[in-house]
This record gives sequence, structure tokens and C-alpha cells, in this order.
Amino acid sequence: MPAKLKTAVVGATGYAGFELARLLLRHPHVEKPLLFRRENDVKGVNNLADAYPVLAGNGGYPLEPFSWERMQDTGVKLLFLCTPHEVSRRVVPEAIDRGFRVVDLSGAWRLKHKENRAVYGFEDSANAQLDESTVYGLPELHREQIRSATAVANPGCYPTSIILALAPLLRAGLVDRTRGIVSDSKSGVSGAGKEPNARTHFVSVADNLSAYSVFGHRHTGEMLEQLELDAGELIFTPHLLPIPRGILSTIYVHLVRPVSPAEVDACFRESYSGSPWVRIFATPQLPQIQFSLHTNYCDIGFCLADDRRRLVLVSCVDNLLKGAAGQAVQNMNIMYGWSEEAGLN
Amino acid sequence: MPAKLKTAVVGATGYAGFELARLLLRHPHVEKPLLFRRENDVKGVNNLADAYPVLAGNGGYPLEPFSWERMQDTGVKLLFLCTPHEVSRRVVPEAIDRGFRVVDLSGAWRLKHKENRAVYGFEDSANAQLDESTVYGLPELHREQIRSATAVANPGCYPTSIILALAPLLRAGLVDRTRGIVSDSKSGVSGAGKEPNARTHFVSVADNLSAYSVFGHRHTGEMLEQLELDAGELIFTPHLLPIPRGILSTIYVHLVRPVSPAEVDACFRESYSGSPWVRIFATPQLPQIQFSLHTNYCDIGFCLADDRRRLVLVSCVDNLLKGAAGQAVQNMNIMYGWSEEAGLN
Amino acid sequence: MPAKLKTAVVGATGYAGFELARLLLRHPHVEKPLLFRRENDVKGVNNLADAYPVLAGNGGYPLEPFSWERMQDTGVKLLFLCTPHEVSRRVVPEAIDRGFRVVDLSGAWRLKHKENRAVYGFEDSANAQLDESTVYGLPELHREQIRSATAVANPGCYPTSIILALAPLLRAGLVDRTRGIVSDSKSGVSGAGKEPNARTHFVSVADNLSAYSVFGHRHTGEMLEQLELDAGELIFTPHLLPIPRGILSTIYVHLVRPVSPAEVDACFRESYSGSPWVRIFATPQLPQIQFSLHTNYCDIGFCLADDRRRLVLVSCVDNLLKGAAGQAVQNMNIMYGWSEEAGLN
Amino acid sequence: MPAKLKTAVVGATGYAGFELARLLLRHPHVEKPLLFRRENDVKGVNNLADAYPVLAGNGGYPLEPFSWERMQDTGVKLLFLCTPHEVSRRVVPEAIDRGFRVVDLSGAWRLKHKENRAVYGFEDSANAQLDESTVYGLPELHREQIRSATAVANPGCYPTSIILALAPLLRAGLVDRTRGIVSDSKSGVSGAGKEPNARTHFVSVADNLSAYSVFGHRHTGEMLEQLELDAGELIFTPHLLPIPRGILSTIYVHLVRPVSPAEVDACFRESYSGSPWVRIFATPQLPQIQFSLHTNYCDIGFCLADDRRRLVLVSCVDNLLKGAAGQAVQNMNIMYGWSEEAGLN
Repeated sequence: MPAKLKTAVVGATGYAGFELARLLLRHPHVEKPLLFRRENDVKGVNNLADAYPVLAGNGGYPLEPFSWERMQDTGVKLLFLCTPHEVSRRVVPEAIDRGFRVVDLSGAWRLKHKENRAVYGFEDSANAQLDESTVYGLPELHREQIRSATAVANPGCYPTSIILALAPLLRAGLVDRTRGIVSDSKSGVSGAGKEPNARTHFVSVADNLSAYSVFGHRHTGEMLEQLELDAGELIFTPHLLPIPRGILSTIYVHLVRPVSPAEVDACFRESYSGSPWVRIFATPQLPQIQFSLHTNYCDIGFCLADDRRRLVLVSCVDNLLKGAAGQAVQNMNIMYGWSEEAGLN
Repeated sequence: MPAKLKTAVVGATGYAGFELARLLLRHPHVEKPLLFRRENDVKGVNNLADAYPVLAGNGGYPLEPFSWERMQDTGVKLLFLCTPHEVSRRVVPEAIDRGFRVVDLSGAWRLKHKENRAVYGFEDSANAQLDESTVYGLPELHREQIRSATAVANPGCYPTSIILALAPLLRAGLVDRTRGIVSDSKSGVSGAGKEPNARTHFVSVADNLSAYSVFGHRHTGEMLEQLELDAGELIFTPHLLPIPRGILSTIYVHLVRPVSPAEVDACFRESYSGSPWVRIFATPQLPQIQFSLHTNYCDIGFCLADDRRRLVLVSCVDNLLKGAAGQAVQNMNIMYGWSEEAGLN
Repeated sequence: MPAKLKTAVVGATGYAGFELARLLLRHPHVEKPLLFRRENDVKGVNNLADAYPVLAGNGGYPLEPFSWERMQDTGVKLLFLCTPHEVSRRVVPEAIDRGFRVVDLSGAWRLKHKENRAVYGFEDSANAQLDESTVYGLPELHREQIRSATAVANPGCYPTSIILALAPLLRAGLVDRTRGIVSDSKSGVSGAGKEPNARTHFVSVADNLSAYSVFGHRHTGEMLEQLELDAGELIFTPHLLPIPRGILSTIYVHLVRPVSPAEVDACFRESYSGSPWVRIFATPQLPQIQFSLHTNYCDIGFCLADDRRRLVLVSCVDNLLKGAAGQAVQNMNIMYGWSEEAGLN
Repeated sequence: MPAKLKTAVVGATGYAGFELARLLLRHPHVEKPLLFRRENDVKGVNNLADAYPVLAGNGGYPLEPFSWERMQDTGVKLLFLCTPHEVSRRVVPEAIDRGFRVVDLSGAWRLKHKENRAVYGFEDSANAQLDESTVYGLPELHREQIRSATAVANPGCYPTSIILALAPLLRAGLVDRTRGIVSDSKSGVSGAGKEPNARTHFVSVADNLSAYSVFGHRHTGEMLEQLELDAGELIFTPHLLPIPRGILSTIYVHLVRPVSPAEVDACFRESYSGSPWVRIFATPQLPQIQFSLHTNYCDIGFCLADDRRRLVLVSCVDNLLKGAAGQAVQNMNIMYGWSEEAGLN
């Protein structure tokens, strides 16, 4: 039996970092990971079980301050970054210089076009080559490049649900881009992060629904780049749902010609025939948020209008799994040649 | 001081009927209403406070079996129907024959075109004249006809939120219908009625979101008729939210020419200058479900894309008030020449 | 018609302050109140409708910085304090010196015994007389003193639900105190205030229930004093419910002798015969949180064990109304000789 | 490697049956189980993934009509009953006659005393011997008898949380029973079953809390028998929480003498030193419902009053796992000599 892989998680106390730590702790090919604290973590939280008592009683999950030396001394090969994008922007180049492979869960390295990156406000200009070579870690689209990647930029949660629903139809040339695509997306509150603020206060969210960042969400660039769309061809509207986790995107497209439900179904099934983490629902069945919760699936369903020219797609992911930590593990599985399902069932 | 109006509510135990009874009980121009039971109500519920203990201690709200004689004997002039559409279809003609005015909260009399009514499955053909003369009770569009109407068909909850957001722009000729309008709408569970079933079970709804009746919801016909749209020009997708009440519609339109935010704002404000129950939010502020909850407001806000050709509208109503009982009272206020706000603050 | 009363609310942007402002704005005997900002309010919030858009469109509710002069110039007679207890501790004496009557919604002035006040950490010793003369504003117990009070200390939300359920039985000598009374109480999140923190983050509260401040909640002293209990005779355990508002207390008492349900029922009904804001549920009906939500009622119900010696009481209030702002208005009504129900229906 | 165990689940479509099926499907020592439909299941649901689409895409989980022959033909050794108690009452004796071992998740066989069983209304008198020999399947109390049991009566969800919290203290003689024990328990809605009714309608549960079955819940007998208490020594009050799953019990006991926190802590830790599925929280940390959700843990914490004579215990379980399906698997693990944790991590 080959030696297990040694990994480290930076920022294990955030929602995605915690899910990732849990997944790694039971992954069959991975050793117990190093868990690094975030800089603004409460002092005195020295164990992940203190921040997440659901872990209590399973032994220790020590949280350490970040240290390149600790990683080198313990033989870490792969580094997961669950850090703010400005931290990831700084840490990834150094990690690569030091010989680590990296999966970064932030938005720092997802965008290939400088104008799209502007939304993050990076002032560095020296990273042009790394911006180019980093692989966008959506396995269903870039499986081959991920295999050999040094740095993988794990996709955003919204883009995962939207790109996977649209890519097969766009590639098949079925979508009339001139009429515009709409993605009306709804997310649970964990997508807004663990930091308490007025927006995430229980009383603000419960019994409510709100749209936000209309025409201005940072995830838009990823979708445009990956789907090769112009800015005017996609409207993406996120909403905050009164639930802890899960994303549902309702996506509206016009087709270039009338198609049958069987053709749409076949388009999806062929595109994802080798992709264990995408499920296609047979029309008229549609995914619901509950169906993919606590799984790594992206669920996709659709309804065709009577005129067979208008299509409504429904796509669901658990924002912390397929939308973050699960997808990071899926990327690791590919990078090390393991089954894509390893550690995710 | 003129005599107060005597009214009756049929179906006072459903969610909308209960809200209506509450509103009538404190309306300044209305006597204590007769409250009629629905046929399938639990036996032994002889008081509305038994079904809704929030009313306890305020004296009696006797529930009676339906009776034309009781209405005539007590001087009822106006009848509110909170009954299934097939019951309303039967009761309204008789009520008119007997000399009552009627506000019907079901979908039975909202549709002018026979082909649109087909969705309800009525087999009557003798009602052509009544189908014609019944007024669609959206005061902001049909205030004058409501004033003198004998029968008012109170709009559906979804259509209220969507028609009010779209009508001003369509009337102004700003909307490019050829590119299609999308209304992605989300409703709390009371919109699905009080009858327990697998869909309304707490465990099915909580921590979830689901789309339903895609391309096939019964409310579609109302919107097409009132907005004078072809079936191919509007996609309406309802979703079930894990909250008790409230509707938010996110509506996507392409414009025929670039417009400024000020022009959109002015279009709405002029359209609703005399309408106390519509609030326009100054961009970039957007309505949220909480803001109109427990009020009779329809809240409307918008965001324009940078190209000034694409518009996202957000519209919210409380489905039981502006989407049902509140609007019914607003219609009554107009029918009897009172302030449109009477009894609704 | 007598002139209306001029009032001011300090801290109108908190949850209780906002509810109070809404109540005062529609109170028949009260002028539009002055609304004072809290010191830590977001700059630029100059209107209550900015903080609570549900108020939008009803005209202006200007928020002003606190000013004694403004109050004197505009003829304010009654001051409501929705301020932290340390602020109230400072402001109340000055307000009285300046000739205002005061209703304070904080815990600053509720406690008569110095040792009970220790929990608030006040270091003042000069207020002994004021501590004595301030009236505990639970109208059902202290109606007469409230009538002529200069300063009223509005009770805590938990104590309101618990004291009203226990006082009649204790006064009747029915409770065996030696065996201990238990109040297991559960509150919605608005009771924890509007300040965002880790405890009030949506993800921490949703799908959860937690006990807190066991044997150490600040409200305990009020209950002991008002019910004349020793510390060892009452256990009070608060819990945080995943709902925005409402309190339910389940209270366990042993009786000194077997009693009949009719005797318990009579004990409550006689105690509260002149109290319009307490509702007694006929056993075996029990209050639920929904029944008193958005009302000023305290609902009380009970179940007797077969042995007729053990009693379970269930008591519900809306923590922001009967537990705060509604009770403050009820106190004002009594202070000015109006109907106790004025402005609360 | 020894052959895997063949099992069957009767009633796999209920909430507990579904959780059990999921656990068995990934259990390392168990073959894919036979899944039997319940009699009132919707016709046409022939696969568990149709009722629970979260299972979609993982291959087939065929649902079959109940059949003794199918079980015998496929070599089933162990039968899990997730059936109504009256069905379990009938099926268990026949299963034993036919040579199966049984774990019954209903209340049919949990009670040893005829007077306690009266609450279920069984009219059989021929089962006296089986009532006696069936083992109450709470592993932490009856591990040895479970090992060799033919029929195991899986405990109720509430009793699991309460008995585990109280048993160590009662056995140690620390509890003053004469002063009465109170368990104020709160459960998520899945505990009320999958059948839609007025109580489980989303609108009835959301934004609410209600007590029910006060002094009359069917689970009371289990607690009295297992804890060897008289009926007058325990008050158990269940409440319905607005969450899908999870139970928290707040338990109040008086002690016979002052004890230290260390003594209470030691009492629990010694009692459960060999029990991997009980976690003791170090005071003043207390369990919350979230901490044990989706796990098989029973979490127990406590607070002592200053007088060291009064104790508040907080105990949490996931009602569908440690309160039902997880405990059933734990019992199976013991019956077949496997690790108690097998298949439960």
C-alpha cells in the first residue's frame, strides 16, 4: 500500500475550511491534515473541536499558527487555502516556489482576464504567468489540466451550479446567446461566510428573501470566462435564502432551434457520462436544494416550453461541498490519480 | 354618520379568509361580518378563535354554516368568497341574481379568454356575459371599473406582484417583448393553502427551495391577459420558500432603447402617483420580503445594467394581504367610495 | 378634545425601540414622537425608515441626536428609554430632575435589592431613593403605583411571562416552594438584541436549540423580588429558539394540596379579571408562541397531573410587545389615565 | 473474510426507515438490505430513490412488498421493523417463530409492565413471555442482554436522551426522587412522522413552539421502567420545535447531598467509559442540537447551582440516529459482535 498523502488546510475554522478538514480526516488516501488557524481567529481556539463541537470526542484536531517550516518538516505535499482572496493572492506564489501543490478555494486565481480580475482590486502585475498556468478547478470541464496542475483555483459556489448547467448546451451550439441568458440564483447563508454582520443576523434573514449584488457580483467573471460569454449575454442575480446551506439556480435560455426533451437529456448525459458528481434529472423531475445537501453532487434538471425553443434549467449544489470543500477534494483526487469519488461518499 | 356596511365571508377558516375576517373586524366603515364555514371544515369549530387562537379573548367570532337566508335577514350587501374556484364558479352567479355585490378571491372569474380558463376545467358555457362583466380587481389598473362593479375577481398573489411591476414599463412602450420577459417568483408556504399534504409538511419545506409548475402555473393566464402579452413572451417560474408568507418576484426585461434610472423611476412614480399601496424604491435600494410583510404594500425596485438596455425588477407583496385579503378590502373601499387606505393601516 | 401627549424615544433603532416607535405613531392619544438615535448607530441613518424599510412611504420619521433641549422645546412630557442599562442608569436621574416622567425599558431600575443589582455592575450609591421609588412596570401587579409613578422600570421579557403565570398561585398560597419551581423558557432571537455576533449569526441559530446562562441570567433577580421567592426556590433556564420573536415558558410547580382544574382556572381568572392583556386558556388548551405573536397578550394555560399536586404552566408573550414595547405603552396608558388597551389593538 | 449479514427493513420509506436504509447500505459488515414498502405507501414508488431523491444516481434501491418468502429465499437473518406499533406487535412473534432476529423501532415491545403498555391499546394477552424476553435496546444500559437477544425493542427518541442523562446519577444514589425530576424536552418535526397533518404543516410549525401531550406522552412508561421511577417522580413535557430534526432535553434534578462538579463529571465519565456514542461535555460547556445532528452521539452536559444541590442537565440526540436508526445499527453491531461504531462514522 502506498504511503498516504500529507496535506495542510489554511483557514480551517471557516465554514469551507471546516468541511474540508472533515472530509480529509476520513479520506482513505490522506493522512491526518495539518490545520492552520486564520489570523483573525479567536485566541485560545487551539482545537477545531472547540470551534465545531460536533467534532468533540473524536480525538484531537489541533489548530496551529501558519508555518512553512511545519509543513516542510511534516512532509506536506498539497496545501489547501481557505483564506480571503488577498491572502491567497500572496500565499500561492510562495507555496509554488517552495515546491507545494496548491488548491486555492478563494477567488484570487480563478480569472484569466485582467479586466475581470479588477473586481478583486489586486495591484500585482508580476503574476501574469501564474494567472495563466493556474487551472480552473471544475473537474467536469478541465479534468485533464487538473491532473498535472501545480495550482488549482477551486471555483466559486454559484459558478459551479451555473457553469455545469450551461456548458453542455453552449458547447452543443443550442443556445441563442443574442437573446440573453438569465441565472436567478438563491443561496443559503453559509455562502456569506462566518463573520457576523447585519446581513447575517438571524432576524435579518429569517422569514425573508433578498436579492443582492444585482449586475455586480464578483462571481460573474468566472462564468463569463468559462462559458465564453460576453458580459451582455448573461444576467446573474444572487439571492439570500433563509436556510443555512445549499444553492439553487433557475436558469433561462432561448434555443437556436426547436429541440426535443430527449435531445436536451442526451446532451447532458453525454457531457457528463464520465462525471460521477453530476446527476441529470429526467424531465419533468427537478432538483431541490434538499436533494444535494450534504453531498458532492451537482443536480441538474430542465423543463422545455411547448414551443421547444425556451428552456428552464434548475441546478443545485451544496455550496460547502460541490461548491467548495467537496470540489477541492475532488480536485485532489484527480491531481493524485485516485478515484474521483474517493472520500466523498 | 352613515350606517356601516354589512358583509359576509364564505370560507373564513382558510388563511386568506382568516386575514380578511381580521381586517373586516377592525374596518371603520364595516359592521362585524357574518363568517361562514367551509364545507370541509372540522366539525365542532363554531368560532373563528377556535381555529385561530390568536383571536381568543376578543369576544366571539361565530362561524355559521353557509345560508342565503342569513345574509338576506341580516342585511348583507357585499359577499367575499374565499372558496375553491369551482365553488366560486357556482356561487357568484346566484349571488348576483340575489342582488349581492361580490368580491371573489378564487381564480374562477379572473380570466376573460376561454382558452385561458381551460386550466380550471369549468364546463359551464352559460356564463359568457358574466365572464365579460366581472372586473379584474387590481385597483392600480382598473380603479374606475371596480367602483361600479357588481362582481370583482380579486387577483392571484403572484400576478399582483408581477403585473404591478411590469404594467408601467409595458404601457410606456419600453419593453422589448420579442426578447422575452422572465419572472422568477418565490412564495411562502401559506400560498399553497392550509390543506396538509406532502408538499407542505414542515420537513419537506424547511432547509429547502424548489421550483414547481414550470411553464404550467394557473396564474399565467391572468398575467398574459392583464399585460396583453403573448404566451411566448413571458416565462413565469414559481418557487416554494421555507417561510410562512411573502412573495418576491425577480423580473428580467430587455428594453427597446437605452434608458436612464431616472426615466425608469419616473415611469413608476407617475403610474402609481395616486396609488397609496404601491411603494417605489429608489435605485439601488431593493425591496425584501420582510419590508412588505403584514402590510398591504406592493414594493417595487429595480437595477439597470451598465448598457441601460437590461433591467432587473424586484417586486414584493404579502401574499395574504396585497396578494389576497388586503387587496379584497382595498377593492371594497373603492366599491363603496371610501379611502383606499381605510382599514388597512 | 384634550391635547395629545408629546413623547420621545431614546434608542429608536433597536428592536424594542422600533416597535415602540410604531406603536406611538398610531396611538390615538399621542403626538408623533421625537426619535433619538443611539450613540453607536450607523452614521447617515437619519430616518427610522432607512433602518426599517417596512416604514417606507409613510412620510418621514426623522432620527435626531439626543438632546434635552429638543425635548424641552417641543413640550415632551414622557421619555421612553430603549438604551443599554448603563446609559439608562445615568439618564433617568437627570430626566427626573428636569421634570420628565420616564419609562425605562432596560434592566437599570427594576431591582430593589442591592445584592440583586450587583449583576449589572453599577457603582453608584447615590441613587438609593430613586431605586426605591421607581415602580416595577408590570401593570397586572402594580397598576396603582404605576398610575402616579414618575419613573417606571419596564419589566424584562422573560420575567413578564413567568411572573404573570406564577403570581396568582403564589398569592393564593397554593405553591409548595420548598420543592422548588422550575421555569424552562425559550425565546426568539430578537431577545438577544440587534448587535451582530457569533451567537446571533443565522447559521448558529437555524436548525438549533441551545440553553444559556443557566443559573446565571440577569433576569432572575426581577422574578425573585416580584414573586418574593428565595434564590433556592426558583430555577430559570433560558434557551435560544430558531425563530425571530416570541417567548414560551414552561413552568413546573408542586402544590401544597390537591386542587381541581376549576380551582386553578378560577385563581387565574379572578386575578386577571380587570386585566385586558392576560388571556387564560381553558385546560387542556395550551398557548403556543404563534397565538400571542404581534399582540400585547400574555397567554397562560395549565395542565394538572392526575395526582392534582403537580402543575405544568405554559405562558407565552411576544418579547417585543408584552415583553417590551407593548408593555411600555400599556404603562403609559395607565400613567395618563387612558384605557389600558389604547393604541395596542 | 466472513460473509456479510443479510438484513431487511420493513417500512423503509418513513423517516427512520430511510435513515436506517442509508446506514445499512454503507455498513462494512452488511449486504445490501431488502427494503419493504409500507402498506400505505404511494403506489408506484418502487425505488427508495423515488421517495428520497437524495439517493438518486447511486444505483437502484428497489422497494418490494413485504414477503416472508423473499426474506427466507435471500438468506435474511435480521429484520428491522420501522412499522406502526400495532403492526410490530403482530409481526415480531411471527418473525421469531420463523427464526429471524428482530430489531423493532416501534413502541410495541419496549414496556415490561402491562399497565404501562395500556397506552398502546394492545388486546393480546398471549405474548407475556415475549414481552418479558424482549430486550430494551439501549446499549449503554443493556449491552450484555442485547448481545444474545432474539428481539430488541429499540428505544424511543425522547427516552434515549433522558434515560442516558439520568441513569448514572440515579444509580449513584445522588438524586432526591422525592422532590421530583423534570424533563423539559424539545424535538424537531421529523419525530412526528412523515404523515402530513395540521400539526406538521409548515405554517403551523414555523415561527412557533408548542408543548404537547403534557402528563400523557406514550414515551413516559419507558423512562419510568428503565429508570425505576414511580409515576409521581418524573414530569416529562415534550415540545415541537421549528426544525426538521434533533432533540434537546433540559432536565432538572435535586440532589440528596451537595456534590462538586468534578463528582458529577466523574459519575458520567465512569458510567460511559466504554460507550463510544455518549459524549460528556465539561461544565460549563453544554450540548446544543447542532452538535449531535447527523451523528449517533448522545451529548450530555450539566450545570450545578451554587448550593451544589440542584442540577440542570442538557442532553441532545439526533432523533433519527441515536434516537432511532443509528441506535438500531448500534444494537445490530452488538448482536453480531462487531465494533459498536461500525457503519456509524
